[in-house]
Amino acid sequence: MKRHIIILLITFLCLPEYLEAQLKYYDAAEFPLYGKATKNTENRYERLPDSLKHVSRKPVWNLSRNSAGLAIRFCSNSTTIATKWENLNNNLMNHMTPTGTKGLDLYTWVDGAWRFVNSGRPTGKVNQATIIANMEPVEREYMLYLPLYDGVISLSIGIDAEASISVPRTAIPVRTKPIVFYGTSILQGGCANRPGMAHTNIISRRLNREIINLGFSGNALLDYEIAEVMSLVDAGVYVLDFVPNASSDQIYEKMETFYRILRDKHPRTPIIFIEDPVFTHALFDKKIAIEINKKNKAVNSVFKSLKTKGEKNIYMISSEKMLGEDGEATVDGIHFTDLGMMRYADLVCPVIKKVLKK
Amino acid sequence: MKRHIIILLITFLCLPEYLEAQLKYYDAAEFPLYGKATKNTENRYERLPDSLKHVSRKPVWNLSRNSAGLAIRFCSNSTTIATKWENLNNNLMNHMTPTGTKGLDLYTWVDGAWRFVNSGRPTGKVNQATIIANMEPVEREYMLYLPLYDGVISLSIGIDAEASISVPRTAIPVRTKPIVFYGTSILQGGCANRPGMAHTNIISRRLNREIINLGFSGNALLDYEIAEVMSLVDAGVYVLDFVPNASSDQIYEKMETFYRILRDKHPRTPIIFIEDPVFTHALFDKKIAIEINKKNKAVNSVFKSLKTKGEKNIYMISSEKMLGEDGEATVDGIHFTDLGMMRYADLVCPVIKKVLKK
Repeated sequence: MKRHIIILLITFLCLPEYLEAQLKYYDAAEFPLYGKATKNTENRYERLPDSLKHVSRKPVWNLSRNSAGLAIRFCSNSTTIATKWENLNNNLMNHMTPTGTKGLDLYTWVDGAWRFVNSGRPTGKVNQATIIANMEPVEREYMLYLPLYDGVISLSIGIDAEASISVPRTAIPVRTKPIVFYGTSILQGGCANRPGMAHTNIISRRLNREIINLGFSGNALLDYEIAEVMSLVDAGVYVLDFVPNASSDQIYEKMETFYRILRDKHPRTPIIFIEDPVFTHALFDKKIAIEINKKNKAVNSVFKSLKTKGEKNIYMISSEKMLGEDGEATVDGIHFTDLGMMRYADLVCPVIKKVLKK
Repeated sequence: MKRHIIILLITFLCLPEYLEAQLKYYDAAEFPLYGKATKNTENRYERLPDSLKHVSRKPVWNLSRNSAGLAIRFCSNSTTIATKWENLNNNLMNHMTPTGTKGLDLYTWVDGAWRFVNSGRPTGKVNQATIIANMEPVEREYMLYLPLYDGVISLSIGIDAEASISVPRTAIPVRTKPIVFYGTSILQGGCANRPGMAHTNIISRRLNREIINLGFSGNALLDYEIAEVMSLVDAGVYVLDFVPNASSDQIYEKMETFYRILRDKHPRTPIIFIEDPVFTHALFDKKIAIEINKKNKAVNSVFKSLKTKGEKNIYMISSEKMLGEDGEATVDGIHFTDLGMMRYADLVCPVIKKVLKK
């Protein structure tokens, strides 16, 4: 009896190791990466080319090491999907979950749409997480979103030892004519609860089209070299959402030149501008309210002057209804929760769809 | 010239201290506290009475030190609202923001509804945060929500030195016949981005009625002494949302007794039961799907037997539509993001309204 209990105890204690031992890990480098504007990066999971290392301002360069908007595509018939990854900085922010900041997020293709499977929750700089288990052993298409506010040094995907993993069989999301977004901390994904809920990732799923996220927290200051990088992409649409960072002076000074860099290389590509959100605390903080007003005057004024000069295929999205009417969609007045991210996608997605059809 | 620059520099460097010096702090103990079932607690910002210290299971007792659902009411004409607070444990979770876990959240009464002002974001165990500034100096009613997954040892509210602060002038939210919720980690507020977005707090604002949150993460195991505490409250409605934690065996064994403790003292008070949510990863994890099914069979079976025995004023809320249809409303398949919290409130709030009217 006592012996049986001991054997049972040993089995129980060894179960996690036993299960883990049954998994086989594959370097994610073997599978396609979505969401990059350029191939020439120091490491794989980065957003700006090496050539900008000594060109871009230091904060922009450092933020480009964050893997916001990047995703790995693979397919597998495994009953379990696990991951091992090492973050670059092990960042922590008080208004964002560690899962959004430096975690992973898995989706799969079900009945013609991308569906959330589960998140890979981080425990530190070096992480190991089983994302999902107990699935039926059927072949599925997967998309694994990378951290929004940290970098990824290494990443591997674990599956049942006897299961298969391979490059995607279906060309989804569509990779020709991706949509390129430029913007701020919000656009980089602040403060989605998990990577898949950054609004660019939501919109990418809804359109089933690749999106390139060039959001740089606090640093969407209309740096021209970013426009140059964007112009290298044969985009379906460019979305410029820089107003929360750029001052009205910077908008008057740099917006047209930034626009011209894109327009000169892409005479017909739709370019969408987006107003500063009406941040929820602006109802109370009069200084913020005045600033929003001033910046939105600036962006609309430059936009109108472009129109007057005969520029075509340019669009302005008003922020009036961006965050809804209940005031609840941010964590700190500024940064969008998943609720705010969904509302932004509800506003912006139909406009992109419309201009893509033209 | 050089002297001018030095003076300017000193002024600039001292500005935060200067501004801070203009604030005067008041102990929050001077103002009414909402959301408590009982007055007899060791410290003010706790949820179970001293008498349970050696009665309740250790994890339940420890979780009762978390200030989930508690809120301070005050009114002030200050242009700035700041806070100083010390947390009990300085908790950190990888699927929740530190602001939700151990931060504060300020709302104010605007045009007949509670409106989010801004959050108090924590920096460590001891915190100081300006929540809002640059307001017009008008008298406003405020509600300050306390941390969801940590305790509060001390709390004070800072206002302009010359401004006034006082107990509320209006008796909102309504304190008679509060609604008492019993439940799990989700009910305790996991994983709202900020305290005000726990669904019990959302529902309290929508109904403008006091709610008592007795959510105990991982520990809604139908402990009878919690029912005893709940029965001490002359509630408008009791909401029992324990299924995510209790096993089907525990439901069969303890649910009716737990119910009888409430019903014996409150023969006519509506009592609402809520099914286990259809956790979003149950679409893939077959073990979870079977467990949800089994538990919901159990809760509905006991509910039916109560009905058969002639019990009145009992209600069951189906979880079928709780999380919406897009699979996006959780951070980890289980815990609700702000999106999930809003959807839960959309489902549960109308039922409470209806039974309150009866």
